[in-house]
Amino acid sequence: MPKNASKQVRAITDMEADFAQWYTDVCLKAELCDYAGVRGSMIMRPYGYAIWENVQAWLDRRFKELGHANVYMPLLIPESLLQKEKDHVEGFAPEVAWVTHGGGERLTERLCVRPTSETLFCDHYANIIQSYRDLPKLYNQWCSVVRWEKTTRPFLRTLEFLWQEGHTAHATAGEAEDETVRMLDVYAEFFERVLAIPVVKGVKTDREKFAGAERTYTIESLMHDGKALQSGTSHNFGDGFARAFGIQYSDRNNELRYVHQTSWGMTTRVIGAIIMVHGDNSGLVLPPEIAPHQVVIVPVAAHKPGVLEAAEELRARLKSAGIRAFADDSDRSPGWKFAEHEMRGVPLRVEIGPRDLETGQCVAVRRDTGDKNVIALDGVESYVKGALAGIQENLYQKALARRESSTKTAADMDELIRAADLPGFVKSMWCGGEDCEAAVKERAGLSSRCVPFEQERLGDTCVCCGKPADKMIYWGKAY
Amino acid sequence: MPKNASKQVRAITDMEADFAQWYTDVCLKAELCDYAGVRGSMIMRPYGYAIWENVQAWLDRRFKELGHANVYMPLLIPESLLQKEKDHVEGFAPEVAWVTHGGGERLTERLCVRPTSETLFCDHYANIIQSYRDLPKLYNQWCSVVRWEKTTRPFLRTLEFLWQEGHTAHATAGEAEDETVRMLDVYAEFFERVLAIPVVKGVKTDREKFAGAERTYTIESLMHDGKALQSGTSHNFGDGFARAFGIQYSDRNNELRYVHQTSWGMTTRVIGAIIMVHGDNSGLVLPPEIAPHQVVIVPVAAHKPGVLEAAEELRARLKSAGIRAFADDSDRSPGWKFAEHEMRGVPLRVEIGPRDLETGQCVAVRRDTGDKNVIALDGVESYVKGALAGIQENLYQKALARRESSTKTAADMDELIRAADLPGFVKSMWCGGEDCEAAVKERAGLSSRCVPFEQERLGDTCVCCGKPADKMIYWGKAY
Repeated sequence: MPKNASKQVRAITDMEADFAQWYTDVCLKAELCDYAGVRGSMIMRPYGYAIWENVQAWLDRRFKELGHANVYMPLLIPESLLQKEKDHVEGFAPEVAWVTHGGGERLTERLCVRPTSETLFCDHYANIIQSYRDLPKLYNQWCSVVRWEKTTRPFLRTLEFLWQEGHTAHATAGEAEDETVRMLDVYAEFFERVLAIPVVKGVKTDREKFAGAERTYTIESLMHDGKALQSGTSHNFGDGFARAFGIQYSDRNNELRYVHQTSWGMTTRVIGAIIMVHGDNSGLVLPPEIAPHQVVIVPVAAHKPGVLEAAEELRARLKSAGIRAFADDSDRSPGWKFAEHEMRGVPLRVEIGPRDLETGQCVAVRRDTGDKNVIALDGVESYVKGALAGIQENLYQKALARRESSTKTAADMDELIRAADLPGFVKSMWCGGEDCEAAVKERAGLSSRCVPFEQERLGDTCVCCGKPADKMIYWGKAY
Repeated sequence: MPKNASKQVRAITDMEADFAQWYTDVCLKAELCDYAGVRGSMIMRPYGYAIWENVQAWLDRRFKELGHANVYMPLLIPESLLQKEKDHVEGFAPEVAWVTHGGGERLTERLCVRPTSETLFCDHYANIIQSYRDLPKLYNQWCSVVRWEKTTRPFLRTLEFLWQEGHTAHATAGEAEDETVRMLDVYAEFFERVLAIPVVKGVKTDREKFAGAERTYTIESLMHDGKALQSGTSHNFGDGFARAFGIQYSDRNNELRYVHQTSWGMTTRVIGAIIMVHGDNSGLVLPPEIAPHQVVIVPVAAHKPGVLEAAEELRARLKSAGIRAFADDSDRSPGWKFAEHEMRGVPLRVEIGPRDLETGQCVAVRRDTGDKNVIALDGVESYVKGALAGIQENLYQKALARRESSTKTAADMDELIRAADLPGFVKSMWCGGEDCEAAVKERAGLSSRCVPFEQERLGDTCVCCGKPADKMIYWGKAY
């Protein structure tokens, strides 16, 4: 296929012209996912799933280092179990899918396809926790959940999605709070160090917190179009679920006490964040730490003697050095391959041809900057490692700079409404009142993102009501 | 807790007295699983799930070495899609669970919770396969499936279970057949080398093959009670699904052809096999290759100076040597710990106490034989490696000897009916007729297990009808 034709086939919408269409184009043309036969569901294709496997590997290792164990709970939850905690069922019942028939018969009790598994973990904890010796319970589960969303978009909001849900039970309120914050920190570390995405850590308002939680902590990130994405949440349930489900233990003095619980989750939505933070008009741009292929080797004039062998030898050398390298030895043209692997966001491309073999060199091209360098094959490993580290850092710094430059402050509603017209976060002081939060939503079209841990004293009156305020809050338009 | 009391608490049913109750006791008391609120569903607890994670790690690595990639397909299948292949829907429709309501509304089309995903893979393949260049497609998926079983038992037959399902598409019938057999070989290797369970490889009869398959290959293993377990299956679909779903590609001469497909699966049932092949009256016995903890270190007189430190140091040394070692430093008594880790089937126990510290020794006790050895701490790593290899081999040889000694031959129906009273397989010649297969089921209560690849010429007439027969077949009572 001639180079131009291939580029034609691969063309995607300009991100400045239509960001939503650009996003969908990247999802489909980078072969991350495909549409499936059920409205709002998607198929995760090998390349998209490989990114998810890297997400899983990092988080799972970290969870286990911190003492968590994986379990598997049933997919189907009896209606009576879902109803045990009042706030929780109110939050989830409207968006669940119901199984009413099984094995050719109508069921005596409806079963919902899990939207989240608090009720199952609580029911199990009530069975297995008796004594202080049984605490803490630090469990996690990798699974899919179903929430009947009206409008859906690949990775960001789908009828079914993959996630992990951690569920822990502790002897004291203090331990539960420590766990909630510790796991938020794990998420923040993952986003910043692995995905190269800066986040704002903070607490959700009561209006935005999880159904049944005392407090919900969140990491919020900013997409290229200036919209916010809630990227991972960690909930402190206090003893609310424990009271509803009767989860008690006898302490060292043989007195019965309720446990304190947490849950925390991260989903395939992170793939949407990667696309929307780092992507450009040539497609996906993957941070090296999460990329299935960190380096693609493209042989040039592959029919010439020794070229394919050299490409394969280079791949093996990089692999030995711990680099995820891939040699594209398909019968496509180099131009087709360049466009293809740009679309797929491979961080570094190495081209090797007959001339390079003579001179003992190759050409390295960075996906993030387009920088092209001629590199000696001797010591290519250390060049590649350095380049990958540089790409990782550059992507983070670019994302951070974009977030900083598009975060505004507002002292009153006029400023807030004007700021709402521009992309990005808006910071302001807030009195903590739900009425003001609702008014900001209605008048400026902004939802509260979080009250950040890192507070700044922007003033001393609420952006909405003008009354005394000692909290700084982030507002934004959100996915 | 005194040693005897702890043993009391942990007591399980004698396996010779009531094998089914023994099995349930082991599942619950080794904390592999627990019952859940939905009839026939179970909770996989950390220890059971850790075994499954080891199963996944081995198989997943092997699949990828052979060029397979993981994907994720939706959980819910529209009724119209399920109905596209006639034999397939007839096989599965009676045992599916139906979602009829979502998001508070009645759905216009029912969705079934996947019992298996052939139809989804076929629908996707029809979209993404155009040319010979797109072949083969070698996909796998890790997920849970739901089949509305009437009678259920933990791991062996549950309403929902975890599995992997491989789905591949090939240009030719020959390539599909090669793949089907290759993946059966992977399963057999996994059972024999990792789980220490000998298997019979063969082909299922038409009566027993998978709904929609041309041929189903199987590995069959024998449990301690003499019943057979279908342990992994690999199906060759020919081009049947491709014709139903219109999956065509243009070959090198630009002619349209149908693809040929396979699928193959292994489930959490393997955990049931491990329990029922190797377990004994003290509980679970795990082959070292699959055990979450290969070695448990139990400190004796742990309050004496240096003992806990020595246990931890030993654990770290074994871990550095690539051994999955665990030091039980809980405040339970040594006797409690001995019983507990026997119940959990840890292959090797190492005891270390104050006297051992003086003499530079420790005591090693094998779970499979009970053999107790005093070992020098110098070079303990190589002793442990040797012992683990010995346990792995011994478990395999014991299982093989039991299977061989309980496999009988039958020349006619009288012999077959007498043999059916004893535990184990029965081998016989078979004419290949479905009537004879049905008669054996009815008169002897035995189902056909497989026509093994390794054929023996036991005679030349069918065990049932007495007509000429050139196939040897295995019969058995099955889980």
